[in-house]
Amino acid sequence: MTTQRLTKKDRDELRRAEIVAAARKCVVYNGFHATSMSEIARTARMSVGHLYRYFENKESIINAIVEMITIEHLDWIASTAFKKNIAEFHIQRFTERFVENHEERALLLEMHAEAARNPDVAKILADADKLFRKVAASTVPKIYPDMAEEDIIARVELMATISESFLLRSLKAPEAEAARMNKLLEGVIGYIWPKN
Amino acid sequence: MTTQRLTKKDRDELRRAEIVAAARKCVVYNGFHATSMSEIARTARMSVGHLYRYFENKESIINAIVEMITIEHLDWIASTAFKKNIAEFHIQRFTERFVENHEERALLLEMHAEAARNPDVAKILADADKLFRKVAASTVPKIYPDMAEEDIIARVELMATISESFLLRSLKAPEAEAARMNKLLEGVIGYIWPKN
Repeated sequence: MTTQRLTKKDRDELRRAEIVAAARKCVVYNGFHATSMSEIARTARMSVGHLYRYFENKESIINAIVEMITIEHLDWIASTAFKKNIAEFHIQRFTERFVENHEERALLLEMHAEAARNPDVAKILADADKLFRKVAASTVPKIYPDMAEEDIIARVELMATISESFLLRSLKAPEAEAARMNKLLEGVIGYIWPKN
Repeated sequence: MTTQRLTKKDRDELRRAEIVAAARKCVVYNGFHATSMSEIARTARMSVGHLYRYFENKESIINAIVEMITIEHLDWIASTAFKKNIAEFHIQRFTERFVENHEERALLLEMHAEAARNPDVAKILADADKLFRKVAASTVPKIYPDMAEEDIIARVELMATISESFLLRSLKAPEAEAARMNKLLEGVIGYIWPKN
């Protein structure tokens, strides 16, 4: 059996992905503030010196984590959210995203908590958000060719806001009560994105 | 000039309020996870032994902080939110709450991040939320005497959800874009709480 040799570039990418995965775990379990570069190195099973060859500080690792989450989120827009008429948006998926994925929820909440303290992290989140809204806004004219640009932006903005609120809500409200609310939320989404 | 002596009960309450204020600062600056009982004691200028006489652990201090925020929030409902027709709700105040009060924002985000890791903190937030929704729901029949109870609950639930989303949003979205969205949000609130 022959083993194909990885190029240096491949190995570097693999190493960076391992570091990012290790950092995600550290942040989920201990919080961003309590996570040190040496703990990330230990979790990724490498020396601290080695870690610094890939990332110069915690912010740059956070940047890579947010980038990864943003790409996943953009894939989700492309594949699901805007496939049908936007008003037929699957409300169930929209509200269940954070109920099912506890690690992503913990990670995102931790990022936002850190952003309230740390302007560098706030900027990383704001930039990811901007990109997300830009991509979302660019898909809307396919469904609403006559909608004015500023109407599209306001609608995408409000949808993103309501969608994110489930990040907080899913921690606290029992699912039974969420179900009762979803019918009303469907009406709200239909108001935001009327049948055309 | 005579000084009135504080009773033991008054002194205990004062001490507890000082501890809670110190803990708020610690959590805002370092995060809940990185805040120790000894750091809270140092910030409140007392010994750790003394601190434990008032609060048995960090969770009980968090409980007191959440209780304080909940009371402020309930005062706000009583004084503002439901004073006029609910659809005339001051959208500006609703969205600006977290833009203006950075410490409250940081504190609440930190609590939610910790709740994603710590079921005791999640329960504290869920209980506060339940109380908040109960009080809000009890004020609605004064304005909508004919609305069914389950409709009221769903509406309060959705309003609370959308309102909280600004906790995340205010960190990231520029205010200019928030302003553009507010007009649409007014329409959504009018949909949830129609003129009667």
